[in-house]
Amino acid sequence: MQIEILRLNHRIFRDKRISTHVALTGRAFHSTNLYYTGQKDSEMEESVNKITKKFGGNFKIMHIKDDVKLIEEKKKENFKILHLTMYGVSFKDKNFSKESKLLIIIGGEKVEPHIYRLSDHNISVTYQPISEVSALGIFLYSIVGIKDEFANSKVEVTPSERGKFLNQS
Amino acid sequence: MQIEILRLNHRIFRDKRISTHVALTGRAFHSTNLYYTGQKDSEMEESVNKITKKFGGNFKIMHIKDDVKLIEEKKKENFKILHLTMYGVSFKDKNFSKESKLLIIIGGEKVEPHIYRLSDHNISVTYQPISEVSALGIFLYSIVGIKDEFANSKVEVTPSERGKFLNQS
Repeated sequence: MQIEILRLNHRIFRDKRISTHVALTGRAFHSTNLYYTGQKDSEMEESVNKITKKFGGNFKIMHIKDDVKLIEEKKKENFKILHLTMYGVSFKDKNFSKESKLLIIIGGEKVEPHIYRLSDHNISVTYQPISEVSALGIFLYSIVGIKDEFANSKVEVTPSERGKFLNQS
Repeated sequence: MQIEILRLNHRIFRDKRISTHVALTGRAFHSTNLYYTGQKDSEMEESVNKITKKFGGNFKIMHIKDDVKLIEEKKKENFKILHLTMYGVSFKDKNFSKESKLLIIIGGEKVEPHIYRLSDHNISVTYQPISEVSALGIFLYSIVGIKDEFANSKVEVTPSERGKFLNQS
């Protein structure tokens, strides 16, 4: 499965760490691209790229200007467009694990109506206010599961009952 | 199951939104208390309390000064102490869904060695850098599942294929 993420309306001051956590969560579940609209944030990009360089994989983060254009391009490439929102249909009622291409849209503070309209599915993880970070994590976990191995990693964690073991590989 | 959360070393400037998202994620999975160390942040407490007032439940957020004292108290009250860390044992290798009382510890930027030592379990969701928010979300989802109903809620989402429906109840 090819998973890409679109994070809407990034604001450097307010969202830096939240968007970074969205990116890391996406990467940890083998998404390949994260696009974001809003303010371009080179510092955020750099901190995510540093992690990818160290822990491996092919995750790319890129700023885009036009969300509608991206969504339309992805539709032409046969991506299913899935918007995660508290207001959508429960993720338990649909099965996305057999889709071959998914673009997952993650809102910012306010999501414009066209996102609800252009998405193939508006999907809710819970009907409680939660966090775009944990909603994305739970959703990705539900369709991908845990796959801890990444190509080209320079370090690797050795699981431990007590303590921190990070090995150079 | 009674679930409480301890968030370590909150910094007002850097962690405000991350800690808020930790709290909302905890609340959405029916944790009752979130304790946090570091800087007291009345603004964060207020924004979490506003959500609880609106969406219901008994979630309490409170600043504490001494993490060791809290952990020792909770041990006396028969809580199992579980520290979520990338370096721990996989959450898939243990079953916590039958525990009656859990204190889940969520780190900040740097976690002191005594936390690894005092915890009954150091547990990892993935061996990739992810986010304390999504790690907590996935872990809670794995032991609690989705339970969307809360007592005393003033509003309720009506699931929808397209659009936003929030009802006063």
